[in-house]
Amino acid sequence: MKFDTEYLWYETKARRELVRITDEVSRVVERSGVREGMVLVSAMHITAGVWVNDDEPGLHEDIWEWLQKLAPQGPDYLHHRTGEDNGDAHLKSLLVHHQVMVPITKGKLDLGPWQQIFYAEFDGQRRKRVIIKVMGE
Amino acid sequence: MKFDTEYLWYETKARRELVRITDEVSRVVERSGVREGMVLVSAMHITAGVWVNDDEPGLHEDIWEWLQKLAPQGPDYLHHRTGEDNGDAHLKSLLVHHQVMVPITKGKLDLGPWQQIFYAEFDGQRRKRVIIKVMGE
Amino acid sequence: MKFDTEYLWYETKARRELVRITDEVSRVVERSGVREGMVLVSAMHITAGVWVNDDEPGLHEDIWEWLQKLAPQGPDYLHHRTGEDNGDAHLKSLLVHHQVMVPITKGKLDLGPWQQIFYAEFDGQRRKRVIIKVMGE
Repeated sequence: MKFDTEYLWYETKARRELVRITDEVSRVVERSGVREGMVLVSAMHITAGVWVNDDEPGLHEDIWEWLQKLAPQGPDYLHHRTGEDNGDAHLKSLLVHHQVMVPITKGKLDLGPWQQIFYAEFDGQRRKRVIIKVMGE
Repeated sequence: MKFDTEYLWYETKARRELVRITDEVSRVVERSGVREGMVLVSAMHITAGVWVNDDEPGLHEDIWEWLQKLAPQGPDYLHHRTGEDNGDAHLKSLLVHHQVMVPITKGKLDLGPWQQIFYAEFDGQRRKRVIIKVMGE
Repeated sequence: MKFDTEYLWYETKARRELVRITDEVSRVVERSGVREGMVLVSAMHITAGVWVNDDEPGLHEDIWEWLQKLAPQGPDYLHHRTGEDNGDAHLKSLLVHHQVMVPITKGKLDLGPWQQIFYAEFDGQRRKRVIIKVMGE
């Protein structure tokens, strides 16, 4: 049984940013030598998400607008009494989930034709981590 | 360590359709011979979801109505400048998540009494895939 | 390859309650002897959620208010024709997801500094289960 773990660090320039990370995940899977298994891709922060969806810029704008509507940025979260101002980022993280499992078949990420893995930063401009853990044979 | 992978194909008659797939997942788990482990059930498309919930027709209608409210079908998504008309289906997929991990104990899906696995099609009427990957011993 | 499975039972006093379960999950991981692997933490009921986020009381109130807004309690769900009154709890479960996978590295839960695991009860006051399944080496 083989394992491989890597931590990707991101410090986005904008507060909200979407980073396509399929190639980084793919590289870790290749390095691991795992032919059959799964890879967990999981944000290690509570104000970020990880999802699998389409790499289409118009859709990305739609997603941001939608997330702002369902989990709006605002001054009136109780969480802000702690001095933070990122209440919306926590809700966005809960909404889209902070992790995915990607199947590995014949040594490759077994994704559908349009599936790409994204790291979604909801409260950036500081160093944050994503863990990639491969498990298989 | 044992693995077993199967791709289920679906071509739903309606644009939106809910398909109970517990039996198919269960069959793959039995075939695999895995007694202890996990099975990943994951849509390979970006306009579909996979969830575990109740098999109750009234609830299913409630879920559709709720999804239409939170991620409405509409003509004004930027994604539609590509010629697509399924912006809402991408958002619905993000909302409910596109995958689940089901534990396997003593050779069976270790689900609670009311838990059933569903494939949720948000943009059907074409052939789409779900991957089932069993991993364990 | 090692496995360890435990079922945690909860009977919350309130209908909605948030229970931090990081220590329970951690205990099962230690008992398992797994140094590298993953642990699945998954509600076995369809009216509960499991998530990883911040342990901050103000934020917890924000989350409850937000969930009530997006998946409101109400008398008019079709699901209630069955005699149930928990339609909102099913929707809340779909919204936040009912499970997480936590990576295990060097024998410990590999969580970020603010990540805590929570069981979110949306329809309590009865005995309900969460499965914890460790898999690794």
